[in-house]
Amino acid sequence: MLSAVRAFAISRPALGATATAAVAAVASRLAAKPRTLAAFGKDSRLYHKPARSSTFKKLGKDDVRHFERILPAETILATPAVGGSADPIELEGFNADWLNKYRGSSQLVLRPKTTKEVSDILKYCNDQGIAVVPQGGNTGLVGGSVPVHDEVVLSLRNMNKIRSYDELSGILVCDAGCVLEELGNYVGERDHIMPLDLGAKGSCHIGGNVATNAGGIRFLRYGTLHGSVLGLEVVLPDGTILDNMSTLRKDNTGYDLKQLFIGSEGSLGVITGVSIATPRKPSSVNVAVLGVPSYENVQQAFKLARRRCGEILSAYEFWDANCMGAVLKHQELKNPLSSDYPFYVLIETSGSNKDHDDEKMGALLEELMEQGIVEDGALAQDDSQISRMWAMREGIPESLGKTGPTYKYDVSIPIPVLYDIVGDIAGRLETAKLYTPGEPGNPVRLVCGYGHIGDGNLHLNVVAEKFEDRITNIFEPYVYEWVSSHRGSISAEHGVGLMKRDYLGYSKSPEMISYMKRIKDLFDPKGILNPYKVV
Amino acid sequence: MLSAVRAFAISRPALGATATAAVAAVASRLAAKPRTLAAFGKDSRLYHKPARSSTFKKLGKDDVRHFERILPAETILATPAVGGSADPIELEGFNADWLNKYRGSSQLVLRPKTTKEVSDILKYCNDQGIAVVPQGGNTGLVGGSVPVHDEVVLSLRNMNKIRSYDELSGILVCDAGCVLEELGNYVGERDHIMPLDLGAKGSCHIGGNVATNAGGIRFLRYGTLHGSVLGLEVVLPDGTILDNMSTLRKDNTGYDLKQLFIGSEGSLGVITGVSIATPRKPSSVNVAVLGVPSYENVQQAFKLARRRCGEILSAYEFWDANCMGAVLKHQELKNPLSSDYPFYVLIETSGSNKDHDDEKMGALLEELMEQGIVEDGALAQDDSQISRMWAMREGIPESLGKTGPTYKYDVSIPIPVLYDIVGDIAGRLETAKLYTPGEPGNPVRLVCGYGHIGDGNLHLNVVAEKFEDRITNIFEPYVYEWVSSHRGSISAEHGVGLMKRDYLGYSKSPEMISYMKRIKDLFDPKGILNPYKVV
Repeated sequence: MLSAVRAFAISRPALGATATAAVAAVASRLAAKPRTLAAFGKDSRLYHKPARSSTFKKLGKDDVRHFERILPAETILATPAVGGSADPIELEGFNADWLNKYRGSSQLVLRPKTTKEVSDILKYCNDQGIAVVPQGGNTGLVGGSVPVHDEVVLSLRNMNKIRSYDELSGILVCDAGCVLEELGNYVGERDHIMPLDLGAKGSCHIGGNVATNAGGIRFLRYGTLHGSVLGLEVVLPDGTILDNMSTLRKDNTGYDLKQLFIGSEGSLGVITGVSIATPRKPSSVNVAVLGVPSYENVQQAFKLARRRCGEILSAYEFWDANCMGAVLKHQELKNPLSSDYPFYVLIETSGSNKDHDDEKMGALLEELMEQGIVEDGALAQDDSQISRMWAMREGIPESLGKTGPTYKYDVSIPIPVLYDIVGDIAGRLETAKLYTPGEPGNPVRLVCGYGHIGDGNLHLNVVAEKFEDRITNIFEPYVYEWVSSHRGSISAEHGVGLMKRDYLGYSKSPEMISYMKRIKDLFDPKGILNPYKVV
Repeated sequence: MLSAVRAFAISRPALGATATAAVAAVASRLAAKPRTLAAFGKDSRLYHKPARSSTFKKLGKDDVRHFERILPAETILATPAVGGSADPIELEGFNADWLNKYRGSSQLVLRPKTTKEVSDILKYCNDQGIAVVPQGGNTGLVGGSVPVHDEVVLSLRNMNKIRSYDELSGILVCDAGCVLEELGNYVGERDHIMPLDLGAKGSCHIGGNVATNAGGIRFLRYGTLHGSVLGLEVVLPDGTILDNMSTLRKDNTGYDLKQLFIGSEGSLGVITGVSIATPRKPSSVNVAVLGVPSYENVQQAFKLARRRCGEILSAYEFWDANCMGAVLKHQELKNPLSSDYPFYVLIETSGSNKDHDDEKMGALLEELMEQGIVEDGALAQDDSQISRMWAMREGIPESLGKTGPTYKYDVSIPIPVLYDIVGDIAGRLETAKLYTPGEPGNPVRLVCGYGHIGDGNLHLNVVAEKFEDRITNIFEPYVYEWVSSHRGSISAEHGVGLMKRDYLGYSKSPEMISYMKRIKDLFDPKGILNPYKVV
């Protein structure tokens, strides 16, 4: 049976020779924060920026003096405007998001090292009515992690210690500012993996992951953070430290308050510590890339993959030809397949017995080919090929970014109609004479889709020459209306942030939104935490 | 390899011939509700019953008249005391829990058929200040589902329709009053299983499961309801219907309010509808029962099972010799092993490929025997043997109940010290001359432990001649102190209810409890829902 697996794999060098280096480069670039003013383009990207609320105090020199008294000097970045000595350029990486779409004008960044310091900062800000934006790795896509105006940036990056790890149970307890990839390396050396993985892993913080309820590529297998997060330490706006750092898999003692902070995007409290269950590292991993003639076949292949691979299926990702074109153009990667196809699928299995897993994957691939569901495929033969195949999928966002300014929508839609919206939007842009597929020189360069089929999660991307109203107006609010009419979610995993606050009603009822606001008022009565966002 | 599996299995008839019938009988008896007054023992069981709150209105005939106007006649059970015509005996199954430990004196049971009716009932009760206890299958163990005094019982049993089922995605949408076992049968015919399973499945409702965040025997594989519940429909005390019936696996649009109701034990709102992800039915299931010489070896076997069976390990349950003695005495089941052992383990695997699963299980059992970690074992050869092995584990609670009145504690404790508390409590009872192991005629008949090792969840049981203070005082609050000192949970899966409300502080900080109370006030400002319980 194993020979069948090998026969299925193509024998020529499947991916570019320099691809491994490219993978590392992609990973580090993907979420790298701009460091200089020059790095920021001048094209203002269009989004609704609410007016500054007059209820918040304007930060003054006295406030900075106060922070200097309660915090170590090296944790404070204050510009001369508020009595500090930092060059404003030093604050740029905190003021703008990595896509340079959202930008604030904070004059003060605080990078506390302890939970007590976070508590002291928030208590003061709450007493004084100073607005605060908590910030992790600043890799978000909806403007949730940067200031809108002059909010104080509370960066968690100096809280990056592992507090404990139990190798028997796989339960990790750590500071919120630990970088996801570093945690992955740490538990990896101890025969476990993190239950989530995403392209920004080299920069994003576990606290930010929890605050935004990050999904990513392991969701299919290991599920939501609402299941794997066992405990949180959260500092509330008034300085109260909520210690819910349970390391227990089961605990039914009262309301599960920590769940509220998972996905609250830093608007209810600041997560300072995380307890999370890490699964055992699978001893055997297989990855294949398939060429698929239609979206209908992408679905059929998924059904068969669930049946044949069952418990070892750990990822099922797809992307379309336009995504592939961008990746092959902008990454040092080669198409592992011998032709081009309308759709590509990446299947990953992870299990405990290599022989069994090879046999399951081999049987699946054979059946997919025999039934004509897929037209070609390549099975990775070693870890380096596995990395390169993943780099194709994970390189999509960056490759689109290099193609042009990109409108990004992250939606949940029932699987059967999930890809319909891509053609629909493309058609509307064509009708408006803004887009001609394959032809350069149009205001819109590319309409494409990719995502996590197993989770019903599509990333719809529109790459333009520049951001402009006549393009935006084609799909906003149309995309949200379309998603709402299919009972989908206008934000599958990226969150609400600033970008989607005004559109929440497309996915949530007025009663739900009303109770969200009451919850916000309960934890943050003065509204100082991450204002203008979420609800 | 398969022959090794068979060789491991003992060849004599492993379990009693009439055991299959017994399984069915056990299942139906386990959660059967007492139906007559005679069924209730006279020995009052000791627990703290708080005084009736004078803020609640005493139910009058006018109130019943009102309900008669807004509800179908057959949905109302009112005693003559409140102007109805029901024999009080008809209300007994609603007033007392199935262990006859907790008992209220409600004169009115309402069994609405629609969400709108639930809303109308709650709105009226809220306006009038009438206390209400929501009730599902009434199979709880902490007094959470019965009235404490004269609360109106709001039974969900007439809301038992499946609303939709998507066989592709496995997403089930149903009324809260659907019985878990019936849902299991329904999705089972469609090649899926429910993500949770527990002894009371024949009576418990899915709404009650969600309201109490039920754990059970599939937790190890399929995780918590916080992960598998995708949406809820909840009626708030003021009659507001919160429609959060999402069928999406991913939805990051604002605070995940449904999480608050999971495990809130009916004290924040009444769950009327549930959307839940059901996993594919495994095509291959193996079950083995092992005889183990020590608790240390129970842990070693668990480690090896995780390594060898990895992704197909679906249950790892253990019980001690005292539990086994009670089961063999009170159930029509025979020990499948040839001798008696201090500990027994039930291992279950569930996978998609029988040959692979047999090989993994076979290799595990061989290794466990070779290394001397287990001393004997039996591998079920067919579905009937699988059922009988599970009946041993699931028959423990009923068998202990037949042995005598049983004090039950459900705790989470770090696995290495999990069983220590059983010996500790036995020792204290011996020192107090209340218990001599193996000797009849003592006030305490049996101290024993069983549970879900993989989840760190122990069920500690003390069987007495009768409930009495001198026994209770030995382990209350000592058990809670012990658990707290090991940073465990005083309620792993049973919840708080009436039983543990006063002990919440052993597992949660004052700040956590304070915010729980504020959440309660937010959703239920008049406190009419399930009063005297949880927080």
